[in-house]
Amino acid sequence: MKIFSDAKLEPAAAENLRDGVTPHELLISKYLGASVLAKAAPDPAFGEAEIAFGQPDPGSVENSDNLRWVHLSSAGFTRYDTPEFRALATSRGIVVTNSSSVYAESCAEHAFAFMLAQSRRLPKALASQTASGTPEWFQLRTTSSELRGQSVLILGYGSIAQRLAEMLAPFQMQITAMRRAPRGDESVKIVTPENLAPALAAADHIVSVLPENEASRHFIDREKLAAMKSGAIFYNIGRGATVDQQALAEALHSSHLAAAWLDVTDPEPLPADHALRLAPHCFITPHTAGGHRDESGTLVRHFLANFQLYVAGTALRDRIM
Amino acid sequence: MKIFSDAKLEPAAAENLRDGVTPHELLISKYLGASVLAKAAPDPAFGEAEIAFGQPDPGSVENSDNLRWVHLSSAGFTRYDTPEFRALATSRGIVVTNSSSVYAESCAEHAFAFMLAQSRRLPKALASQTASGTPEWFQLRTTSSELRGQSVLILGYGSIAQRLAEMLAPFQMQITAMRRAPRGDESVKIVTPENLAPALAAADHIVSVLPENEASRHFIDREKLAAMKSGAIFYNIGRGATVDQQALAEALHSSHLAAAWLDVTDPEPLPADHALRLAPHCFITPHTAGGHRDESGTLVRHFLANFQLYVAGTALRDRIM
Repeated sequence: MKIFSDAKLEPAAAENLRDGVTPHELLISKYLGASVLAKAAPDPAFGEAEIAFGQPDPGSVENSDNLRWVHLSSAGFTRYDTPEFRALATSRGIVVTNSSSVYAESCAEHAFAFMLAQSRRLPKALASQTASGTPEWFQLRTTSSELRGQSVLILGYGSIAQRLAEMLAPFQMQITAMRRAPRGDESVKIVTPENLAPALAAADHIVSVLPENEASRHFIDREKLAAMKSGAIFYNIGRGATVDQQALAEALHSSHLAAAWLDVTDPEPLPADHALRLAPHCFITPHTAGGHRDESGTLVRHFLANFQLYVAGTALRDRIM
Repeated sequence: MKIFSDAKLEPAAAENLRDGVTPHELLISKYLGASVLAKAAPDPAFGEAEIAFGQPDPGSVENSDNLRWVHLSSAGFTRYDTPEFRALATSRGIVVTNSSSVYAESCAEHAFAFMLAQSRRLPKALASQTASGTPEWFQLRTTSSELRGQSVLILGYGSIAQRLAEMLAPFQMQITAMRRAPRGDESVKIVTPENLAPALAAADHIVSVLPENEASRHFIDREKLAAMKSGAIFYNIGRGATVDQQALAEALHSSHLAAAWLDVTDPEPLPADHALRLAPHCFITPHTAGGHRDESGTLVRHFLANFQLYVAGTALRDRIM
């Protein structure tokens, strides 16, 4: 069996990958992605592989007669989430899995860090050197708040959202999540996109973990922003293109929203003079929510665990197609 | 019955206090503290009161023949935590309570916000405008981490520490707390100050919530800092005087500690040229951990709930002497 990889990995993780697939043959691409997120160039070696790990060129899949399984090195999969690619995967019987289990913990912790940093006014408090009893101090103290008892709406209910809901459990929050196709077994209150407006109006915190695809582009538009409660806080750790960024900047300028915390934008990075960079109370991290120590190592271990399932003929984890 | 108050309160909370103690007489001090933390000046009205709410002058207690109960408007009680005051309270049968229930939630959330902000590298990530795939981006991603599975040592095991331990439960952390007098009913592993060294050496995160008194002054000294694991992170939401700040600054300069997050310092605020202000990876908020919306309101509600217990002759909450 031939396994193709274009994932950019630390040397120890690459070695672990090679050991883990032995005695099968590992074909390392000449064109490694700049990161686990970046698209790699087409590679002729791909055409021989039964399994591909990384971010293989979607267009090459059509020409790879042997391909049976693609394991993406990311949680996001925008460039594969097209009607054409889905049709191709279905017709050819190609299974597609992603690495959402690898990123769920750190992404949920990142979202939670945003929520607590906002609640405790950390950006302002860390910059202040004020003394107790000053007007600035009273302003900081009285605008700091407790997450306990507040309400949160999570847009999307995949592994990140479910982990975030677990983390919020000790805070006695009212947790609602939006899911396109409710299954009935969710542990929080579920709303569908069609009945979202009352949930938007009720939430103190709106956390988006939406992936990017045709249906989600500019999902957070001017109308949905207007439907949010005055003083609400918006967080995005999904994909930047799911938001009408100009409308978000205006909602911050008008103080309709109290703050926005974004790990993802469109494009990344935003130009220094972009409306969101200039908007008040807009806090941006450069797509680092998924980062964690030994990310290469956990990616490879996750792939190898799935590889063992594949060899055993069992259902794979994190299957998306 | 006469109730003395020198707590600085918002008008609505002050009104609520007056209503809540009716038909008893409320004596509002002419000398309100600058904040709920600040010592008020001696006030002759104090001498008539049976109950005092706020930060009454400890020296005046000796001359107040009618005093039976002091309810402090803070969680900290350094200026009352002396052998002399304790002896006086005991001999006169004066009960002392504090407002730790009022501040446990926000202080624990503040400590948790520090831990997650550090874990997700928020100060650095929020300041970065780097693109995916750059060396700066890889450095941020790979030095970001997950709290899950790490270890934390909490110094002190009062209401703040217990609430923090509840919040950390979903993170599968190894939680240890130091308590001078273990009771055996604690929900986490307990160590005493005498056997602290191995716990200091094992912890990824050390969170101090120690109050300030004779026994705790410079408790975190050069020796204890040296006993901490290389790369550990120190957090202080107790009192600044419990730390040898010069030794802490050196531990940060030498990179023995990866970071320090302090809501309390000695003095407050630190001078702009203080060693800790110049130390790398030292993050300071200006004693805002206890702040939350309607702090005056929750303080008064907490006092009034205790007042009802007092009137009913029942044991008071948050009793400290």
